[in-house]
Amino acid sequence: MHFVDKERLLDKINTFKHFGDDGMGGITRYALSKEDLLAREEFKRRMEEAGCIVYSDDLANMYALLKGSDAKAKKIVMASHCDSVKNGGNYDGILGVLSAMEVIETISSQKIPHKHDIVAMIWTNEEGSLYPPAIMCSSIVCGPYLPKEIAKNYDENKLLNSKSVIDKTTTFKEALDKFPYKGKKENRINPKDYEAMFELHIEQGPILETNRKEVGVVPCVLGMCNFSIETKGVANHAGTTPMKYRKDALFAMAKVLIKIHEELDKIPDLVYTTGEINVHPCVHTVIPDHCLMSLDARHVSDEVIEKVKHIISSLPNEVEGCTLKTHLEWDRKTTYFNKTLVSYVEESVKELGYSYQYINSGAGHDAQFAAYMLPTTMIFVPSKDGRSHCDEEYSSPTHCYQACNVLLNAVLKCDERGVK
Amino acid sequence: MHFVDKERLLDKINTFKHFGDDGMGGITRYALSKEDLLAREEFKRRMEEAGCIVYSDDLANMYALLKGSDAKAKKIVMASHCDSVKNGGNYDGILGVLSAMEVIETISSQKIPHKHDIVAMIWTNEEGSLYPPAIMCSSIVCGPYLPKEIAKNYDENKLLNSKSVIDKTTTFKEALDKFPYKGKKENRINPKDYEAMFELHIEQGPILETNRKEVGVVPCVLGMCNFSIETKGVANHAGTTPMKYRKDALFAMAKVLIKIHEELDKIPDLVYTTGEINVHPCVHTVIPDHCLMSLDARHVSDEVIEKVKHIISSLPNEVEGCTLKTHLEWDRKTTYFNKTLVSYVEESVKELGYSYQYINSGAGHDAQFAAYMLPTTMIFVPSKDGRSHCDEEYSSPTHCYQACNVLLNAVLKCDERGVK
Repeated sequence: MHFVDKERLLDKINTFKHFGDDGMGGITRYALSKEDLLAREEFKRRMEEAGCIVYSDDLANMYALLKGSDAKAKKIVMASHCDSVKNGGNYDGILGVLSAMEVIETISSQKIPHKHDIVAMIWTNEEGSLYPPAIMCSSIVCGPYLPKEIAKNYDENKLLNSKSVIDKTTTFKEALDKFPYKGKKENRINPKDYEAMFELHIEQGPILETNRKEVGVVPCVLGMCNFSIETKGVANHAGTTPMKYRKDALFAMAKVLIKIHEELDKIPDLVYTTGEINVHPCVHTVIPDHCLMSLDARHVSDEVIEKVKHIISSLPNEVEGCTLKTHLEWDRKTTYFNKTLVSYVEESVKELGYSYQYINSGAGHDAQFAAYMLPTTMIFVPSKDGRSHCDEEYSSPTHCYQACNVLLNAVLKCDERGVK
Repeated sequence: MHFVDKERLLDKINTFKHFGDDGMGGITRYALSKEDLLAREEFKRRMEEAGCIVYSDDLANMYALLKGSDAKAKKIVMASHCDSVKNGGNYDGILGVLSAMEVIETISSQKIPHKHDIVAMIWTNEEGSLYPPAIMCSSIVCGPYLPKEIAKNYDENKLLNSKSVIDKTTTFKEALDKFPYKGKKENRINPKDYEAMFELHIEQGPILETNRKEVGVVPCVLGMCNFSIETKGVANHAGTTPMKYRKDALFAMAKVLIKIHEELDKIPDLVYTTGEINVHPCVHTVIPDHCLMSLDARHVSDEVIEKVKHIISSLPNEVEGCTLKTHLEWDRKTTYFNKTLVSYVEESVKELGYSYQYINSGAGHDAQFAAYMLPTTMIFVPSKDGRSHCDEEYSSPTHCYQACNVLLNAVLKCDERGVK
C-alpha cells in the first residue's frame, strides 16, 4: 500500500485555483488562454522539480515523464485536462492533472521502484468552450484509431480551423501557433510507446454521494444518441386567429416533449436531456411556425439506445396540426474500458479499504477516445450535490486524497503486472 | 348610394406595391425609409390632383384635406398607415390609406356635396418594425387622452429615442429630422378640430372568409393581458444526472404550457398565444435551469380577461421540482368604438346589400388609441386564408372595392348627420 501526500495535493488544488479565478468561487480557464499558460508553467515547474522531463506535442498536449528502470517498458500515462468552461469549477479536469502530478511526486520523493516511465499528461482543449467542440485534441490524436462513424465527426482540418466563440475570427490553429507549449507532432501519445492510460475525474453527478460511496470504479462511457426534433406550423397574428385555426409549433413541441417523457421514463437507468430549444419568429404577438429542439439520450446498453432511436423515430408525423420531423444527428456505442485496468483500480480501492461502486461515465472524456487507442480506464471522485460546470462544483479534500491513493496504487499494479 | 371607382382603387393598389417590393410577392416598407418616402410622394401627388391641401405634423403623420362647404364643421378623417413589417404584405395598413384616397377622389371627381372637410391621413410607424414599438405615433398624438395605465407604457421621450433594430444606433427622432415630410406640431390631429375618424383595415384573420361575409363591422378592439412566465430549475450535466434528481426548467415549462391550454381552452372566444420562449443555457448537453415564456390573451369581456389573469396567477408555485413565477406585464380593457359611427357603417353595408357580420378587432390599430381622443370606428376587409404580415397576405379586388364603398357611404352619413 502506498499513500500520496494529502497536504501537497491540497496545496496544488489551492494554487491552481488562482489561474483563472472568476471571483465567484470558480474559474474561467479557456484552452490556450493566458490562464491556461499559467497552469502549464506551474505544471512544468513542479514536475521538473520532481525529476521529470517535460515536453509537449504539436497540439500543446503536455507530458511530464519520470524515467522507469526498464528502458524497454512502455510508458504508463495519467492524463486529464486543465481547461474549464466559462465560470466552471476547480475540480473538473484539473483534479485529474493534479492527482497525476501528485502520483509522480510521491513515486519520486518516496523513491518507489518502477519499471515503466510514468507520465503525467495534460490534454489541450477538452471543454472546447472557446474553440468548439469538446474533447478536441484527443479526437485528433486518437483519430486514426476511432471507429469510422465517430471519426467522421472529427475532421482534423476542420477542428484546427475552429473559430473563437468570443472574437469569432481567431482560429484554434492560430492560437496554438502562438502558444509557448506547442511542440512536435512526434511527441504525441501513441499505442506503440504507451502501455496504459488512467484518468481520474470528478463524477459530475450525484450518484456516489447519494449512495455514500468514496470512489467510483468506471467500467465504461455510456453509449448515446442525439436527435434534432422539429415541428412546423403556421405563423399568424396573436389577436386575430381563433384557437381552432391555429397550428402552433411551440404547443406541438410541448406535446411532443410530454410524449417523449411518457415513453422514455419507462426505461430504467436511461438519462436523456432536451437542452436546446428555439422557436421562430419568437415574437410574443405571433403564433410560432417553427420549433427546433435537441434530444440527448445515454445508456450503457446498445440495445436500449436502439430502442430510444426507435421510439423517437416512431413519433407521429403530425401533432396539433403541425408536421413533426425527427433527425438522428449522431450516435455512439458504449465504450468499454480495459478490464485489467478496471480490476487494478478495484483491487486498489479494496486494499485501501474505501467504499466504492461501479459507475458508468455518462459524460464524454478524453479517456473515452484514448480507449480506442490503448488500454484505458477512469477513477471517479464524488461531486458535492452532483454539481459541475459551475462555481459550486466541489469534491472534499478526503475524497480527492482517497481517489489519488487509488490512482497511485493502480498505476503501480500496472507497472508491476502490465496489461493483459 | 355612392360608389367609388373600382379600377382607380386597383390602380392604386398595384402602384403602391412597387414601393418596397421584396421580389417575393410582398413588401418591406419600414417607417421613414426611402420606400416610405416614395409612398408619401405618390400620396401627395394624387391627393393634390384631387384638389386637396397636403401637409404633415411633427411626427410626419400626413394629411390630405378636401375642403367642405361649412367652414365651422369639424374635419372627418379616414386614416391608416403605409409602413409594413419586414417581408409583409400589400394590404395591411396601406389598403386603409388607398381607400381613404379613393373616397377623396370619388367625392372630388363626382362633386359630392359635403359640409365637413374630409381628410385622408397616414399615421407614421404603426408597425414599429424598424423603430419599436408598434402604434408609436398614434400613442404620442393621443397620449394626453389615453387612460393612465396605458399612457405609462408610452413615454414620448423614450419613443422618440427608439433605436433602429438594424443599425442599433439611429434613433427614430434622428430619422424623423431627416425625413422630408416632418411638419409642424400644431398640425397634429386633435379632438377640437376633428369630428370623427374611420379606419378601413384588413381583418388579418380567417373569420370573415370562413363565415363567407363580405364586410366586417367592428364594434371594439379586444381587451388583453400579457404575462411573462418563468420556471427555474438546476443546470446539470446531460450524461451524469439521473432523471429522478433533475429539475428541468424546459420540461416544467412544457407541463405549464399544457396546463394553460387545458384551463384556457374552456373559455369560449378567447385567443391566447405563447409566442416567445427562451431557455438557459440552451446547450444540448446541459439540463436547462431557466425558461422564460410569454403569454398574450385577448377577449372582448373584461371579466374574462380578469379570469385569465386569475388562472395564470393561480398556477402552482412548483412544477416538476422547478419554481414557477408568473408576472403580469400589462393589460388593457376592451376599447369600444363610437356607436353612432358603427351604426353608419352597418347602415351603409345594408344599403349596399353586402353580407356582413360584427367582428371584434383582436389586433391593435391606430384607431384603438384614436378612440380615446375622438369618435372612431373601423371597417374590416376579408383576408385570404386569414394570412397577414407575409407575402401571401391578400384581399380580393371585390372585397377591397366593397369595403371602400362602405367607407365612402359611412363618411357621407357622418358628414350629413354628425356624431351624436
